[in-house]
Parts: sequence; C-alpha cells; structure tokens
Amino acid sequence: MSKPRIVRAPRGAELSCKGWVQEAALRMLMNNLDPEVAEDPDRLVVYGGSGRAARSWESFDRIVSTLRELEEDETLLVQSGKPVAVFRTHADAPRVLIANSNLVGKWANWEHFRELERQGLMMYGQMTAGSWIYIGTQGILQGTYETFAEAARQKFGGDLKGRLVLTAGLGGMGGAQPLAATMNGAACLVAEVDARRAQRRVETRYVDRVSEDLEEALRWVLEAKEAGEALSVGVVANAVDVYEGLLERGVVPDVVTDQTSAHDPLNGYVPAGMSLAKAETLREEDPERYVAASKASMARHVAAMVAFMDAGSVVFDYGNNIRQEALGEGVKRAFDFPGFVPAFIRPLFCEGSGPFRWVALSGDEEDIFKTDEALKALFPEKTSLHRWLDLARERVAFQGLPARICWLGYGERAKAGLMFNEMVARGELKAPIVIGRDHLDSGSVASPNRETEGMKDGSDAVADWPILNALVNAVNGASWVSFHHGGGVGMGYSLHAGQVIVADGTEAAARRLERVLTSDPGMGVVRHADAGYERAREVARERGVRIPGVTE
Amino acid sequence: MSKPRIVRAPRGAELSCKGWVQEAALRMLMNNLDPEVAEDPDRLVVYGGSGRAARSWESFDRIVSTLRELEEDETLLVQSGKPVAVFRTHADAPRVLIANSNLVGKWANWEHFRELERQGLMMYGQMTAGSWIYIGTQGILQGTYETFAEAARQKFGGDLKGRLVLTAGLGGMGGAQPLAATMNGAACLVAEVDARRAQRRVETRYVDRVSEDLEEALRWVLEAKEAGEALSVGVVANAVDVYEGLLERGVVPDVVTDQTSAHDPLNGYVPAGMSLAKAETLREEDPERYVAASKASMARHVAAMVAFMDAGSVVFDYGNNIRQEALGEGVKRAFDFPGFVPAFIRPLFCEGSGPFRWVALSGDEEDIFKTDEALKALFPEKTSLHRWLDLARERVAFQGLPARICWLGYGERAKAGLMFNEMVARGELKAPIVIGRDHLDSGSVASPNRETEGMKDGSDAVADWPILNALVNAVNGASWVSFHHGGGVGMGYSLHAGQVIVADGTEAAARRLERVLTSDPGMGVVRHADAGYERAREVARERGVRIPGVTE
Ligand SMILES: NC(=O)c1ccc[n+]([C@@H]2O[C@H](COP(=O)([O-])OP(=O)(O)OC[C@H]3O[C@@H](n4cnc5c(N)ncnc54)[C@H](O)[C@@H]3O)[C@@H](O)[C@H]2O)c1
Ligand SMILES: NC(=O)c1ccc[n+]([C@@H]2O[C@H](COP(=O)([O-])OP(=O)(O)OC[C@H]3O[C@@H](n4cnc5c(N)ncnc54)[C@H](O)[C@@H]3O)[C@@H](O)[C@H]2O)c1
Repeated sequence: MSKPRIVRAPRGAELSCKGWVQEAALRMLMNNLDPEVAEDPDRLVVYGGSGRAARSWESFDRIVSTLRELEEDETLLVQSGKPVAVFRTHADAPRVLIANSNLVGKWANWEHFRELERQGLMMYGQMTAGSWIYIGTQGILQGTYETFAEAARQKFGGDLKGRLVLTAGLGGMGGAQPLAATMNGAACLVAEVDARRAQRRVETRYVDRVSEDLEEALRWVLEAKEAGEALSVGVVANAVDVYEGLLERGVVPDVVTDQTSAHDPLNGYVPAGMSLAKAETLREEDPERYVAASKASMARHVAAMVAFMDAGSVVFDYGNNIRQEALGEGVKRAFDFPGFVPAFIRPLFCEGSGPFRWVALSGDEEDIFKTDEALKALFPEKTSLHRWLDLARERVAFQGLPARICWLGYGERAKAGLMFNEMVARGELKAPIVIGRDHLDSGSVASPNRETEGMKDGSDAVADWPILNALVNAVNGASWVSFHHGGGVGMGYSLHAGQVIVADGTEAAARRLERVLTSDPGMGVVRHADAGYERAREVARERGVRIPGVTE
Repeated sequence: MSKPRIVRAPRGAELSCKGWVQEAALRMLMNNLDPEVAEDPDRLVVYGGSGRAARSWESFDRIVSTLRELEEDETLLVQSGKPVAVFRTHADAPRVLIANSNLVGKWANWEHFRELERQGLMMYGQMTAGSWIYIGTQGILQGTYETFAEAARQKFGGDLKGRLVLTAGLGGMGGAQPLAATMNGAACLVAEVDARRAQRRVETRYVDRVSEDLEEALRWVLEAKEAGEALSVGVVANAVDVYEGLLERGVVPDVVTDQTSAHDPLNGYVPAGMSLAKAETLREEDPERYVAASKASMARHVAAMVAFMDAGSVVFDYGNNIRQEALGEGVKRAFDFPGFVPAFIRPLFCEGSGPFRWVALSGDEEDIFKTDEALKALFPEKTSLHRWLDLARERVAFQGLPARICWLGYGERAKAGLMFNEMVARGELKAPIVIGRDHLDSGSVASPNRETEGMKDGSDAVADWPILNALVNAVNGASWVSFHHGGGVGMGYSLHAGQVIVADGTEAAARRLERVLTSDPGMGVVRHADAGYERAREVARERGVRIPGVTE
C-alpha cells in the first residue's frame, strides 16, 4: 500500500470520515498531492523546493486511516509529516495539530535538518505544503496583484488605469507581473532577455503582446496608457537597455520595479550587452568574469531605477536583492527606494490584512463562483477586490479542488467566514467550505529577511508572535493548526504558524469561525501596534482590538 | 505605581478577580516575586540567572490590572513578559497564553537577545519564572531525590537502606545530594574541599555530620551502612583524595557520582593536592597552570570513578561535564559510565513521569499536608513517594505560598489532579489548588545538551515535540500555557513548554484536569515511544496512549 500513487481528493457531499472537519483535513491533504497541484507528487513534494505534505507514503497512509476513524472529540498530532498520537480533546478543539521542521536554534540549519531527514526523522513543511492548504499558482498572481493594488491605493487613488508600469523578468514569479498589472488597469512594459520565456507567457495569456523592438513595444504601451487601456507588452531585451532607453527618451513610468533573477549573479541574471547564447557559454568558461559583468550590469540597472525615482516614478525592490548587489558595486543611493514589504505589504499587515483563501470541498467550480459573487455583495466598497474576483474567474484555471484567494483584513475575514457558513447552512453551496491562509500573514510569521525585515522597533527576529498566533487559533477552535520552521527563506531564518477552519454550516462552526477569524488577523494588528506602527494602533482603536496600554 | 515594591500573593478564599483561574494566575505571578521565593524581586528576577516573571514593573502592573478585569471567556496574551492582547475565547480556554524569549534560529543567541532586552523588547523567562510556577528550592532537592530513588528502583529493589553513596561537591545544586541520599535511606559520604561550605550544609540540616578526617568519616558511614541507618557525612577534603583513598582501602560504594563544579576548570574545580588558599592565589597569578592542574586532577577523578565501576559500583555523571574533560586528558574510558539523564531520568520520562507540583492558593500549610496524606492514600504502593512526602514535610521549609512537588507518571497525574479537585469541591481544602510543573518534563522540552541528550534515534534537536505539547495542553484547557526558549542551558540550546491548571472544585475544571493531565504526560510517552524506547511503547500499550503505527 505505502507506495507512490496518484492521489486526488474525494468530491461531493458524502462523508468518508466521522465529521466534516476530519473530512476536510483528509481532502486537503489529498488535494495537496493532486498531480494538478503538487510539483512532484510521487515524492510527496507540493511546492517550494522540497515542501512536503507527509513524511513518507507510509505516514500518508496512516494519517488517512487515522482521520477516517477520528472521533468528533479526538485530535490527531502530526510531527514533521508523521502521525504520532491521538488524544481525546473535545468538540471545539482542532481535529489536527501539526508541527513541522522545528529545530532547536543552535541546530537550526540545513545540514542538521538534512541529516535528520535522511534518517527519516524529519520533513520540510514549507508553509502550506505541510499544513495542507496549498492551492497552486493562484497565490503568486494574487500576491503580485495585491502589491500593485496597494501601490495604486497609496499613490494613484485606487487603480492603475492610465498608468505605465515598467518592470523586468518573466520567470516563475516574475511572470505574474504583467497580468497582475493589467488586472489593476495598467499599461505594462516588461523586459525579458529570453525570447522563449516571453513567448510562453503570451501563450498562457499572462502577457498580451511581445515585441523584439523597444520602439514598437513602447508605442503600444504608451498608446494604451493614453487611452486608459489595460495592456501588457513584453519586450525581448535586457532590462538595463530598456530602463536606460526610456530614461534617454524622457519616458517616466508611474511605477518601476524589477523581478529579474538578480539574487543569483551567476546562474540567474544576464548582464547588459550580452546575448543569451554568449551568457550561457561564459557562465561555463569564466564564471568569475560572468559574475563581475552581472554585478556591473546590476549597478547600471539600479542607477536607472534611482533616476526614475528622481524623475517622479514610484520605485520599489521586488525581493530579488538587486539593491544589495548594486550597493556593493558602489551605487551609494541603491537603498534610496524601498523594498516591497515595508512599502506595500506592511501597511496591509497593520490592518490585519493578508492572504485569505478558501476551497470548495464539493469540487464544484460553481460553489467558488457563488462565493465570489457573495463576497462582492458583502464588500461593495472594495473595488480592487471586485476587479480581482472578476478577473480571477476569467483568467485563473483551477488546480485540484476549486479555490479562491484574496486579501482581507481584521473584521472582514470573520464577516466573510460567517457568510460562507450561512451559505453552506442554507444549502446554497453543495458542500462545506474550507478557509485557510498562507503562513505569510500579518501576525503569524517571524522572518527577518522577508516578512519582518526592518520592523520599526527592530523586533524582526522576535518569534513569540507566531507562537501566540498558533496557540490562540488552536484554543479558539481552528480545524487544524500548524507551526513550522524555515518556510520561504530556509532553515534558521523563519518561524511561522498556519490555521485552517471549516465552514460546515453548523452553529458550532459559526462560533468557531467568528472567534478564529477574529483572533488570527487580530494578532497581526497587535504585533504591528506593539512594534510602533501608528496605523495598526488606529485600526485597533477603530475596530476594537484590545491591547493593554494602547486601547485600554 | 510602576516601581519596585514588595509583592506577596493574596491568601484565602476571597476573589479579587472574576474567576478562580484568573485569580490563580494573579497569585502565582505575585508569588514568583515574593521575597521568600524570588532571588532578586526588585529586578523581577525569580531564579536561574535572569529568569524574570514580567518584563518590567509597568508590564507587571498591566498584567495585574488586566487579570483583575478579565472575563471568564477572555484570554490574555503575554509576549516576553509584557501583556500584548486580550481576545475573546471561551470558558474552557486558557485564561493566559505566554511566549517568552523566542527568537528565530539564526538570531537565537545571547548577543541578539541582550540587545533586544536592552531595548525593552524581550525578557528571559527561564522555565518557571516567566510562566509563574516557581516554588523555590524544593525542586532541586526533589529532583536529586528522584534521581537517587530511580537508581534505587533500578539497582537495589526500591531504596538505598544499607547502601553507601559516595559523591562530592556541596555547592548550590550539589548540596542537595546528602539529604536526597538519606531521604532514600542511604549512608552517604560527600567530599567537599571548602570547610565553610560543608559547615553551612550542617547548619541547614542537609548534611548530618562533618569531619576533617577521612578515616573518621568513613568509619561513621560504614557503621551506618551496616546498621541500615540513613546518615550523611561531609568530609573536608579533595574528592580525588577521597575517591582514591576508598579504592586503596578496598571500599566499594554502592553508588558513586560527583557534583563538584567541574564545568568550570578555572573558577569552579579545585585540583587535587592544592589547598583552597593556594587555589585562590594561583587562579589569579597563573590561570593557565591552574586549568592544567584542574584537568589533570579531573582525569584522576574520573579514572577513580571508572575503577569503582569495574569494582561493581553504580556510577554516573551528574551533569558537570567531568567526563568530557577527562577524555580530553586521555582517559579513554571516561564515557564508560553514563550521564544521569539517560541512566535515571529517561526511564522515568518513558513512563510520562516528571515533576508534578501543586500550590495551595489558600496560603494555608494545612492544605498541603492534607494533599500529602491524600496522595499517599491514592498511591499506597509508591513507597519512595511516601518517603519523600513524609521527609519533605519534616525537612522542607515552604517559600511563599505553600507548595509540594513530586514525580508522577502517565495516569497518575490525572488521578491526583481529579482527587485534588474533589477535595476542593468537598470543602476539605480552604481554597483551590494550582497544579503545574517545570518545563523540564518528559514531553515538553527539546534540549540536546541536557533533557534530550543522546536520544536513542538521534532526534535530540527536534523541537516539534514541545510545540505539540503546548498546543494540545492549550486546546485541552490548561489555565495558562507557556512556550519558552533558552531555559536551563541558555539561548539557542533549548525550546520548552509549560502548563498550569487550576483545580477549583467545579465539574468544568474536572473535565479540563482529566484532559490536560492526560495529554501532557501523554506527550512524554509518545515522544519516547517515537524515539524507539521500548519501555515507552510498553507504557503506551498498557495504559492506552494512542500512537498510530505502534498501538494501532
Ligand atoms: N517578491 C518576493 O517575495 C519574491 C519571492 C520569490 C522570489 N523573488 C525574487 O524575484 C526574482 C525572480 O524570481 P523568478 O522565480 O521569476 O526567477 P526566474 O529565474 O524564474 O526568472 C528570472 C527571469 O529574469 C530574466 N532575466 C535575467 N536577467 C535579466 C536581465 N538583465 N534583463 C531581462 N531579463 C532578465 C531571466 O531570463 C528569467 O526569465 C528572483 O530574484 C527571486 O529571488 C521575490
Ligand atoms: N544535574 C544537573 O542537572 C545539573 C544542573 C545544574 C548544574 N549541574 C552541575 O553540577 C555541578 C555542581 O553545581 P553547583 O551549583 O553545586 O556548583 P557550585 O559551584 O555551587 O558548587 C561546587 C562545589 O564543589 C566544590 N569542589 C570543587 N572542586 C572540588 C574537588 N576537587 N573536590 C571536592 N570539592 C570540590 C566547591 O568547593 C563547591 O562547593 C556544576 O558543574 C553544575 O554545572 C548539574
């Protein structure tokens, strides 16, 4: 039995477990391993390097059989992807508690982890792989959409209509940029040095058009911008040539960023003035010269971004470490423009806003479309949410069980969760809804090189917060709660918590939903208020988050 | 208001909070700062270096005022000794959730911690300081008693009557050895190089007699041993001279260990053949020569211990790292005898056995004496428990609120907790009882240099276990739950969880007690069963701890 096989979650309203919460855990574990969802299902790898759903096929089978027998007052404990205990708890307790990849600080590195993994003692859970709530690539698109939307809200009164976005890189993450930009109404020009990559993005409709000629590409986007039309254009060229080319022509985009693979100056970034073919041979023949050329190119790249900033563009770093490399090359003003987390994500975190996702256990896409509509009716004022939901329906292909993601804040999440529960209760949906989130959220992660970089008070590395988050969500009755180490940025660099809660239409679920979907984003407001963010304190005061010494 | 002052917990049956659980948290926080209990109450330091109960006096005041107002369906969150949030939860939830001193792995060191502490962003919680369940020095004595008792159970059929224990060191920890040995019925000879230290231990009745003459001291203990009398004798001499002296005379003690301060070869250990006065000057004048002499002496010290082992003694290392130093000096067989954790503590951990403690909120000593008697009646077969309780009553002075500690295992803890709750319900005790424990317990700590050193499967550094422990105890309704970093062995070296639960005599408390006092030691059985300890698997099978793949 315990061998690789094709796994797909059951669909429909029939239970194979003794309750919907257990059934939800079972289906979501299986869904994480669905070939439509998982990167390497045979090896139980869901996404993100080696992020796994279970430690081994034997553990998978034991988790499944235990969930099938689990009573409504029992809880299964999972330790790094292996089921290790069943304890009697109570009806309002989580049905599953999960701890993945956690190591004592001194041993919190890849070497020790890999040794334990080799001996079958541990598993890497990433964020949503080991906590059974990965929903495919929709999350990347939505995260990028949300970043542009927040920029639009902060700087352009709500959307990017009639605005020009300049960026570069059409790779795994970066490829979401043009679609996320047009979803916000922008005209978007993207430089990509690799023609095949650009072409692939046209085929999947993430980019509208491609040109090999900067003149032509620029004409297209400027016309679209003037007409207030959303249009994305890939230009097959080095980003440096494109950025400097626009500066020479006096074209000042409204937004400038970059997602070339600058984190890797040898195997990622392609230096200006070098063809792709030349780059490939030089990498082999003279890696040192290659890296030197890359870094020199990044210096020009960042200098151009600073020049755009001086000319009035909204410029930000998109997490590829290009500022650091440029600084090393003597670009003193490299850090004059901010990273995307402090600029656009942290203000959302201050409102308890973060990635709210839900899945239709029925397996029926109609259930998601109904929730889309209901959510729009619930939040008539959230225009960028409306735009996202409409475009997601049109452009996002479901992977595995139909799912949706959008960012909601403190107050909104509880409201949405209760509404979904009522829809299930009224029979408007064909089966219960599972509500979860990424561990990357406002009050659930300590990750000094990413989510908690540059906290106002210097508390980047303080990890009490995700622990309190896991504890309060578990206590409040989340369906399953997870606590992981090393997600996103690797061993030693992050600690983070997840929660998933099932809306099965019962009164009991409504009580739990209300509590968990309040305390969970509440932790985000509290964490940021404690770090001194005034907006978080305002939100606490306005929406009734109780903070001793601040609101009382 | 927020200034140092003398704090003492309220006594009696009158509430100053809205429920007994809140009241218990309030009293136990205050009790930790009682001058009888705390080492440096003005600085909020309870014990163990800088282990604090609250981050500042301002935080202390805010915790107190929040607890006084806290409703029966609310939970206070404490982050490194500071109250940071109040969330609505429910009646069966913990009233307080605590996370202290937790840092992301890469930053998990004293330097980063001290910097955050200096900025007022963190606090060191040790184990029971920041989790409001320290009860003074009774714990050290009991831990040592339990170690000797386990040795007695394993090797001598239950007690040490008619047995000779040889050890050394009458310092802060080591001074508990002679009393713990006589409490187990032994004749005990302790070498201590410092006459004043030995004398102080006579005054506090931890040692019965002292002699400067090995011949005399040996006669006393051998006579006691023959007569089956419990007697402890301190001999003012270097441990090496005493150990070698006994070997020369052909005296083979039944048990041999050592708690000289061998962890510190410069400022702790005194080399053989050196007077105390000489030692003090040489430390100053030629520290290198001093250390060399220390290490050479430790080599003889350990060689003597190995010789005792060969002659038939039960020999173990008592956590002072003396084997490591001797090995470094070429004593190849230094690690032939085991450390005390694998030898005597881990077998107890395999049974879910660990430090169970309780406190009488009435403040009345009679309440503790009644629980002592009730516990003896509940476990008529546990003879070493009876001996401990009788002697503790006679020998242990209470500090702060009257408290008791003893080790109980899986099954026993729930039984004891429910009995205490019934005693409260029947009005036999004057107020509720608080039940807690050290974080040093069977399923609640990952500490590769101490509690989880040398785990059978090499999983010493795996920290999923204490996280699952904290989560399941919180879910099951412990009154307060804590998760700390760095207790016992310092920053970067440990992660551990605590739980405290109140027996207020209600039905609801009985349900919570039964659940928590089952899942908490259950985690110990599970953790050790998973690591491959056969005894833990037996205990799981015999007592109904459910482990997928092992019991089902
Ligand atoms: N924002 C975030 O949270 C986040 C998350 C993950 C990754 N990143 C960073 O974003 C970057 C992109 O990630 P990805 O997964 O898309 O990488 P990728 O390697 O899949 O794609 C990078 C693309 O950039 C192109 N490129 C390289 N140099 C170029 C140049 N000089 N001009 C034009 N195009 C060039 C490559 O041809 C490739 O298509 C990485 O540095 C990554 O570390 C950011
Ligand atoms: N078992 C545990 O879990 C545990 C816990 C904490 C500490 N320890 C270790 O136990 C040791 C003792 O701890 P402590 O707090 O009592 O230390 P301490 O420094 O208070 O006392 C050590 C005593 O040993 C005496 N001494 C030193 N060298 C001697 C020698 N050669 N012969 C005779 N006496 C000598 C000193 O005079 C002193 O009284 C330490 O090494 C400590 O690290 C073990």
